[in-house]
Amino acid sequence: MSKEITSREQDYSQWYNDIVLKAGLADYSAVRGCMIIKPYGFALWEKMRDTLDKMFKDTGHVNAYFPLFIPKSFLSKEAAHVEGFAKECAVVTHYRLKNDPDGNGIIVDPDAKLEEELIVRPTSETIIWNTYKTWIQSYRDLPLLINQWANVVRWEMRTRLFLRTTEFLWQEGHTAHATRLEAIDETVRMLNVYADFVENYMAVPVIKGVKSESERFAGAEDTYCIEALMQDGKALQAGTSHFLGQNFAKAFDVKFSDKENKLDYVWATSWGVSTRLIGALVMAHSDDDGLILPPKIAPLQVVIVPIFKGDEQLGVITEVAGKIVQELKDLGISVKYDKSDNVRPGWKFAEYEKQGVPVRIAIGARDISNNVVEVARRDTKAKMTVDINGLSFYIQTLLDEIQLHMYNRAKEYRDDHITKVDSWNEFIHVLDEKAGFVSAHWDGTATTEEKIKELTKATIRCIPLDNEPSAGKCILTGNPSMQRVLFARAY
Amino acid sequence: MSKEITSREQDYSQWYNDIVLKAGLADYSAVRGCMIIKPYGFALWEKMRDTLDKMFKDTGHVNAYFPLFIPKSFLSKEAAHVEGFAKECAVVTHYRLKNDPDGNGIIVDPDAKLEEELIVRPTSETIIWNTYKTWIQSYRDLPLLINQWANVVRWEMRTRLFLRTTEFLWQEGHTAHATRLEAIDETVRMLNVYADFVENYMAVPVIKGVKSESERFAGAEDTYCIEALMQDGKALQAGTSHFLGQNFAKAFDVKFSDKENKLDYVWATSWGVSTRLIGALVMAHSDDDGLILPPKIAPLQVVIVPIFKGDEQLGVITEVAGKIVQELKDLGISVKYDKSDNVRPGWKFAEYEKQGVPVRIAIGARDISNNVVEVARRDTKAKMTVDINGLSFYIQTLLDEIQLHMYNRAKEYRDDHITKVDSWNEFIHVLDEKAGFVSAHWDGTATTEEKIKELTKATIRCIPLDNEPSAGKCILTGNPSMQRVLFARAY
Repeated sequence: MSKEITSREQDYSQWYNDIVLKAGLADYSAVRGCMIIKPYGFALWEKMRDTLDKMFKDTGHVNAYFPLFIPKSFLSKEAAHVEGFAKECAVVTHYRLKNDPDGNGIIVDPDAKLEEELIVRPTSETIIWNTYKTWIQSYRDLPLLINQWANVVRWEMRTRLFLRTTEFLWQEGHTAHATRLEAIDETVRMLNVYADFVENYMAVPVIKGVKSESERFAGAEDTYCIEALMQDGKALQAGTSHFLGQNFAKAFDVKFSDKENKLDYVWATSWGVSTRLIGALVMAHSDDDGLILPPKIAPLQVVIVPIFKGDEQLGVITEVAGKIVQELKDLGISVKYDKSDNVRPGWKFAEYEKQGVPVRIAIGARDISNNVVEVARRDTKAKMTVDINGLSFYIQTLLDEIQLHMYNRAKEYRDDHITKVDSWNEFIHVLDEKAGFVSAHWDGTATTEEKIKELTKATIRCIPLDNEPSAGKCILTGNPSMQRVLFARAY
Repeated sequence: MSKEITSREQDYSQWYNDIVLKAGLADYSAVRGCMIIKPYGFALWEKMRDTLDKMFKDTGHVNAYFPLFIPKSFLSKEAAHVEGFAKECAVVTHYRLKNDPDGNGIIVDPDAKLEEELIVRPTSETIIWNTYKTWIQSYRDLPLLINQWANVVRWEMRTRLFLRTTEFLWQEGHTAHATRLEAIDETVRMLNVYADFVENYMAVPVIKGVKSESERFAGAEDTYCIEALMQDGKALQAGTSHFLGQNFAKAFDVKFSDKENKLDYVWATSWGVSTRLIGALVMAHSDDDGLILPPKIAPLQVVIVPIFKGDEQLGVITEVAGKIVQELKDLGISVKYDKSDNVRPGWKFAEYEKQGVPVRIAIGARDISNNVVEVARRDTKAKMTVDINGLSFYIQTLLDEIQLHMYNRAKEYRDDHITKVDSWNEFIHVLDEKAGFVSAHWDGTATTEEKIKELTKATIRCIPLDNEPSAGKCILTGNPSMQRVLFARAY
């Protein structure tokens, strides 16, 4: 078969696009910057969404749904917020089309102009806090722990499938609290939920940290984040959790009376992850043959392919396969038996490898007489001959092992790519030659941060939560610094 | 407590709004015609969505996601389609805001005007068939059975919570087939799935039928529908399934080569239900005390309320309640034990009645010494004293009985409100005095249909699928007719 996927070495960026398109995750659309999530990609998103949704509910959150549109004036109520989002908004100005009286087809009806323009939500803090104003009166109404699964639109100039699209799917949590401390606790709790999900389900190790001021969410007092490392040494922000202080409560005048009947502004958090995580998943694990999916979120965990000549052999194999399918299903393992006869087994092998199915079982007629099958794992491409007796438990253990191995492999790569540097030359050298995270001293000013970004395209990914204080000198200015921060070039 | 809900007799329309608002299903938003689905309402929608999603998957469908925006030119490609939707479109014309140089705050940046306006999807046939063009080449690519859960926008002039909102949530299935017959089969299959769901989960009986030409979906060859009857005698269209013929394939030039390598246009269906179903649910079952939810889709099936004085009694009751909760959960029944002590039991009773929780269990200290509890069912408000031994199985059976009883009660009302009439006077009289469906002869012309609508506000809800042919005379014109159709005033 033809080599469909560009190798990583040849062109990492093209490799990524090839995987996304050829594995059937997504497709380009006719609308600039918007993508189509194809059935296989959407099945993957469903697994991720359902897992996260359960984690949110287990931590006391409920789902709700707020309007797609935000009145223009709402955006402006929080100064930093509008500054952050005004430049990338889709704006609805009219509510009707009509036939052009000059015969040029369908045109926007000038008589149907909105009095106030509506913004397609880039995020929902404003419309939600405008609502919370009517829902919150007393401490008894708090905490309010609401999540929303929704589509949002940010008019990005340069887009890439999953990583940066004009429209994307995400969840946004918006919580309201009686005290500053409780809101900070919630911010950190949800950061930990994200880290748990990305590490233990997606098998991608992350560093938890806090953003520098200039990388903060527009309207937040603090932005917590998890940062992951891709195979090309670039970082990717995989999730953020914001402590919003009383900023939105003040902007929308949301006060509550406490037990002593004293009025105070409500404390807020918001937190989100998006379909961008699928981009992280692809780039953290896959190889030149295609996608590699961690078993815990793979839409299909096991595929069984018969190797046969003629209907008689197929009949015998199908009988055995049927039993294996049933045993695996009984263990809660998703499995497909692919006995289609219009393509050769080798073609099927390549196809399921491309789709990243964690385990492949091949069954030939001779295997059956020996009471064995061939098991291939996608992550290492190792093949094993395995006895049919006890096969399902073998597979169950193997899936766990693959999950763990994928995480460990990614973690080893990530750990090898955190480099401490103490001079500017070293800093440049590591960024250019080795990439990954660079741990370096920074003098804490936005000016220096901006200058470093201009010179190297590296940004401060985060100040790790588990940072040890250590005195040193800023990598660029030589000014005193009390801690190292993590720099990287990033998606 | 104050009477929060207007009675049906007093003002049916206000009663409906009261229930939706006071039971916590939805709230008004700051955006004209858009509503907020509150946590309880969204939990209900999740139950409905998850049930339907499983039914779609069990019939071979997969989910995908297509862009929110539709280029204006796409809408125009199918003539009837644009005619149907152009008048109610939200139109995105710009992609950026900026500070007004004259100091009037934030304005739309005139330099960020889109070359081609984008429509916020009112439905997705056009963007999807434009995509199918690249996905379908051969009969091997067919059938394509895709569903999408999404938000859509139709700029309605008069809106009502759930029933008619500018933005709403729905699912839209879009399938592609090699033959006309296969597409018609799919259209009917999905109509049956909808009927199954609405009758057996929502406990609302429906009539399956076909729309008259003037009530057809814009772009369809035939629109199948399920029609339900509300307690005020008005009909509500609960779901539609469209046979689209080759209309969209022709508009977007989607051809496939068959086994003989002959090219033909692809055959299409689309089908959808929306959050409107929640409106139907409210109006089919609820009473003047609040919502009544069928057990199969109630977010909470059973609530347990302790009746106690002092901590000692509460302790004893809580121990017993704990065991009951566990037993019910083991049977897969959702249950909440509400021992909050800031409100009285009577207040809780009213609150859970308002929310339509199917079964309430009250436990008092004396009950425990008699080894009984009080069980109240929401649908009939009957109360029973029930032995604690075997209580969970009693409740399990009771939930089934409530589900069935709600359906039967709604069906009895509906059946009583299908009235055959053979004269215009009778027709008017039944519509005004009894309401419900009126089964009458119609001469089959759009002119007559329109005239009847003008005179009576009644529309042809459907031509029932199980119609017996019967010769007669049109109720309005006296012209010959071969079958009766169902008229009603409708939501």
